[in-house]
Amino acid sequence: MAVKSRAATASSNVPVKELQLIERIRRAAAQARPRTGSGIGDDSAVLRIPRGEEVLVTTDFSLEGIHFRRAWHAPDSVGHRCLARGLSDIAAMGGTPHWVFLSLALPADLSQRWVDAFIGGFLKLGRRYSVQLAGGDTAQSPGGILADVIVVGSVPLGKAVFRSGAGAGDVIYVTGTLGASVATLQELGNGRKLRSSSHRRHFYPDPRLALGRHLREKQIATAMIDTSDGLSTDLRHLCEESGVGAVVEAAALPALPGDNRLQFALHGGEDYELLFTAAPNRRVPGKIAGVPITRIGEITRRRQIKLQMPDGESRPMLPGGWEHFAG
Amino acid sequence: MAVKSRAATASSNVPVKELQLIERIRRAAAQARPRTGSGIGDDSAVLRIPRGEEVLVTTDFSLEGIHFRRAWHAPDSVGHRCLARGLSDIAAMGGTPHWVFLSLALPADLSQRWVDAFIGGFLKLGRRYSVQLAGGDTAQSPGGILADVIVVGSVPLGKAVFRSGAGAGDVIYVTGTLGASVATLQELGNGRKLRSSSHRRHFYPDPRLALGRHLREKQIATAMIDTSDGLSTDLRHLCEESGVGAVVEAAALPALPGDNRLQFALHGGEDYELLFTAAPNRRVPGKIAGVPITRIGEITRRRQIKLQMPDGESRPMLPGGWEHFAG
Repeated sequence: MAVKSRAATASSNVPVKELQLIERIRRAAAQARPRTGSGIGDDSAVLRIPRGEEVLVTTDFSLEGIHFRRAWHAPDSVGHRCLARGLSDIAAMGGTPHWVFLSLALPADLSQRWVDAFIGGFLKLGRRYSVQLAGGDTAQSPGGILADVIVVGSVPLGKAVFRSGAGAGDVIYVTGTLGASVATLQELGNGRKLRSSSHRRHFYPDPRLALGRHLREKQIATAMIDTSDGLSTDLRHLCEESGVGAVVEAAALPALPGDNRLQFALHGGEDYELLFTAAPNRRVPGKIAGVPITRIGEITRRRQIKLQMPDGESRPMLPGGWEHFAG
Repeated sequence: MAVKSRAATASSNVPVKELQLIERIRRAAAQARPRTGSGIGDDSAVLRIPRGEEVLVTTDFSLEGIHFRRAWHAPDSVGHRCLARGLSDIAAMGGTPHWVFLSLALPADLSQRWVDAFIGGFLKLGRRYSVQLAGGDTAQSPGGILADVIVVGSVPLGKAVFRSGAGAGDVIYVTGTLGASVATLQELGNGRKLRSSSHRRHFYPDPRLALGRHLREKQIATAMIDTSDGLSTDLRHLCEESGVGAVVEAAALPALPGDNRLQFALHGGEDYELLFTAAPNRRVPGKIAGVPITRIGEITRRRQIKLQMPDGESRPMLPGGWEHFAG
C-alpha cells in the first residue's frame, strides 16, 4: 500500500512508536490538501499527472553514518536534507515536484521526539514546494536510521533538460556558491559546535526549483545537473553524457573564502546548486530567482576536463578528492 | 540521478565492487529495450505514461534480518522477492507495472557473487513482466543488506481497484492458497535444509498480475488488496477502508494441509495472493489466468470481522498472531 508496514500487524515484536509513526505519516498525508489522484492507505498510490506532461522519478538513500550523523545533524535537518536531495534532482531536470514517498527504517531504541522532529523538518520543506506526502514504507531497522526518499514530479512532454545536451563552445555556469556544505562538515569534524542557522546551506539546503524551471522554460540550459557530488564529479558526469570536454577557470569559481577554498569548490559535495551549459550567444542573467549565476568555463570538443589556474597553467581536473565524511 | 551513487566518485573509501554494481545496474538498465521515456544516467528518470492512464507508485523495503536471512534465502530468491512485493501491490490495484527503481545499500564485505545472483533474480522477474529497471541509488550499508524497491505502473484513468469499494452483501474471494509462505518459514526455523524449488511460493512468489488486471477489466472486483501481511490483517485493512465488517468461513479457506493449517491460512503473511470482493449477483469464475479462486465469506454491514468455525461457533477474527520471523 501507499503508507504501509508489515509492522502494522499486532505482532508483539513491533515497538509501539513504529505504529505511531505509521499513524503520524498517514495523518500527515491525509491532512495534506488532496491534489489529483488518491490511494493513500491502498496497495499503491494513484497519481494523476498533468495533461501533456511526463513523469520524473528520483530516489535517494539517506543513511545514518553515511549521509548524516545524529551527533552532528539535528533531526529536523536530517528530515529536510533527505527530501532536499530528491527535490534538487527534479530541479536539475527543469521539472516540478508533486509527490514524495518516504521509506523509513528506525532502530527500536530511537526516541519518539527524534522521529517527530525528523518528520517535522521533512514535511516543512515539502509544504514550501507544495509537495504532498503520498506514501512510503516503514520497518524496524537492523542498525541505524535508514531513509529512502522517492520524489515524483513532472515536466512538459519532451522538455526535460538532460545532462547530455552540451555542445562544444557552450558556456558553463553554476548557481550560488560552491563548497559551503563541505566547509561546514570540516568544522563539525574539527569538533566545533555550530549554530545550524549560520550554516544553512549544509543543514537546510534550498533546492533550486524556481531557477531550474526558469532555465527550462526560457530554453536557456542546453544541459544541466545538480552539484550533489561536487563540481569535479558532476561536471564529469555532464561531459560524459554529452560526449564533450571542458575548461574551467579556477579564478572564476564562486568559492567561499577560506584556506581550502579551491579544494572545497572543486570537490565539496552536497551544495545542491545547478551546473548548466548555454549556447555561447545566449544571454544569461547574472541572477535568476534571486540566486547569482556565475560563468565558470567552456565546453570543448576534446574529451578532457581541464582546470585553468590563475597563473595561466592548465591541469587535468580529476574527480573526487573530497573525502566522504563517513570515511 | 536515475542510477546514481555518491560512491560514483573516485574517493578511496568506496569498495570497488560498489562501483561495479552501479555499472552493472546501468548496463542492465541500458540493455533493456527502451520503452517510452528516457533519463537513465540523469538526475531523474523521465517516464512517459500511456495516454489516458494514471500512475501507480508503490515502495517496499526488504531488509536483511527483517524480511530475509542470508542463511535461509539464496541471493536470487532475495532479488526475486523484493521485486515481487512491489509487483503484487500493482496487481492489487488492477494495474500494469512498467518501471522499477532499486535502491541498494550493501555491506563492504559482501561478495560480488552474492550481488550478481541477487541482481540476476531481480532482473529475471522484471523481464517476465516487461518491467524495466529505470534507476535507483546505491550506498555502502552501515549494517546488513538494505533494498528499497519502487515500482511504477499505470492503470486507465479512474479504473484502479481500491480497498475501499466493498459493500455489505459482497462476497469475499481469495486466489490460490493461503499459508504456504509461513509454512516454509517454519521449516526453515526448525533448521531444515530446503530445496527452494519445492517451496516456490515462499522463495519465488509469482505476483498475480494477469489475474488482478482481469478482475479490473471485467469489473468483477469491488475492492481488492494483496495478502502480504496475512489474511486476518489484510481483510481488516480492506474492511476498515470500506467501512464494513465480514464473516469468514474457516472451512472454506484454501489452506495447505498440515498441523497449523488454520493458523497459517489466517495469519501467514507474504503469500502475495489477491483478496477481493464482488457483488453477490456477480458470477466469478473458479479459475482466472490459471489460478483457482475460492469464495471464503461475505461482507457485513456490522463493522466486525468474524470467523465461522465448522462446528457453527462464531468468534472474532483478530489480526496478527503470526510472528514475524525476525521476532
